[in-house]
Amino acid sequence: MPIVFVEMWEGRTIEQKKKMIQGITKAVTSSLPGLPPEHVQVILRDYPKHNWSKAGKLASEPDFA
Amino acid sequence: MPIVFVEMWEGRTIEQKKKMIQGITKAVTSSLPGLPPEHVQVILRDYPKHNWSKAGKLASEPDFA
Amino acid sequence: MPIVFVEMWEGRTIEQKKKMIQGITKAVTSSLPGLPPEHVQVILRDYPKHNWSKAGKLASEPDFA
Amino acid sequence: MPIVFVEMWEGRTIEQKKKMIQGITKAVTSSLPGLPPEHVQVILRDYPKHNWSKAGKLASEPDFA
Amino acid sequence: MPIVFVEMWEGRTIEQKKKMIQGITKAVTSSLPGLPPEHVQVILRDYPKHNWSKAGKLASEPDFA
Amino acid sequence: MPIVFVEMWEGRTIEQKKKMIQGITKAVTSSLPGLPPEHVQVILRDYPKHNWSKAGKLASEPDFA
Repeated sequence: MPIVFVEMWEGRTIEQKKKMIQGITKAVTSSLPGLPPEHVQVILRDYPKHNWSKAGKLASEPDFA
Repeated sequence: MPIVFVEMWEGRTIEQKKKMIQGITKAVTSSLPGLPPEHVQVILRDYPKHNWSKAGKLASEPDFA
Repeated sequence: MPIVFVEMWEGRTIEQKKKMIQGITKAVTSSLPGLPPEHVQVILRDYPKHNWSKAGKLASEPDFA
Repeated sequence: MPIVFVEMWEGRTIEQKKKMIQGITKAVTSSLPGLPPEHVQVILRDYPKHNWSKAGKLASEPDFA
Repeated sequence: MPIVFVEMWEGRTIEQKKKMIQGITKAVTSSLPGLPPEHVQVILRDYPKHNWSKAGKLASEPDFA
Repeated sequence: MPIVFVEMWEGRTIEQKKKMIQGITKAVTSSLPGLPPEHVQVILRDYPKHNWSKAGKLASEPDFA
């Protein structure tokens, strides 16, 4: 009964989200034999770039790498 | 000092949220004797339905079950 | 389809956990009319006290309040 | 820079975990054109079945469905 | 490769967020010798006050303490 | 009332954890004027390296970078 949370930047289209969700769902069922897809939940958490950082630099800053 | 996170769809009223929070708080203190309610935090995370899925289907799709 | 995560100290018995889970499940269905209990998942995250802190003090320290 | 958390029951082999991780990583890069795999992190959270529930029933109970 | 999530009320300025992120990043690298700041990610999760509670009281209520 | 979760590899000493927790607590109070340290909670989540990955490679593998 895996539950998958994806932490990501906001701004993706619903089509991109759907493709990601379907791919992840399939990846999970493929790796756990016998697990029906109905037992896989995938949930997306969107973040504005100014709430996300690496090395002390906000993802909204121009030189974020 | 339990902290409870509820992952749920957006769209609930504040009254519904408050009732849920109070019920959960009481359920936690009832199961842990001696725990004062001041030590229970409940936090709600709201999601748009297109960020939530089961079996590769978005909760925003008409045939989501 | 709420999913509830409870962050708590390790050491509770399975009986205590079950009572807490049942109470939270009921609190959630009571606050969201029409939601069947089958759509409520409650998951517990246990922590050793030395991984938990408030005011810079570990919960494993004798003067943690 | 997506970060993926998978909440799942403990007991999977490292081979199963690795296969799942590789599948999820590929699913994420496939859905977000231009995203290099180095920017995808997948992290697994294992739970004992008695910490996981649905409909107020522990996953460790014989009639958990 | 620590990843830090800060759960907090919405309403902070980007300057406050940046200062917090830089301070946390430095605190993490200071405590783990040899860890380069590029390996520290800090991500903020903002909540409206009516999604946050203690002792069954919403943080949006006037007598929340 | 910020709550901070640090996702990290297992194996740190309690002294390292305490230093990290104290540094993060101070970083949070410094960035939010008027916030007393009693309102800052820091919680650590430890992971075995084989539950952590980047670019589809487990952190337990010799060539993980």
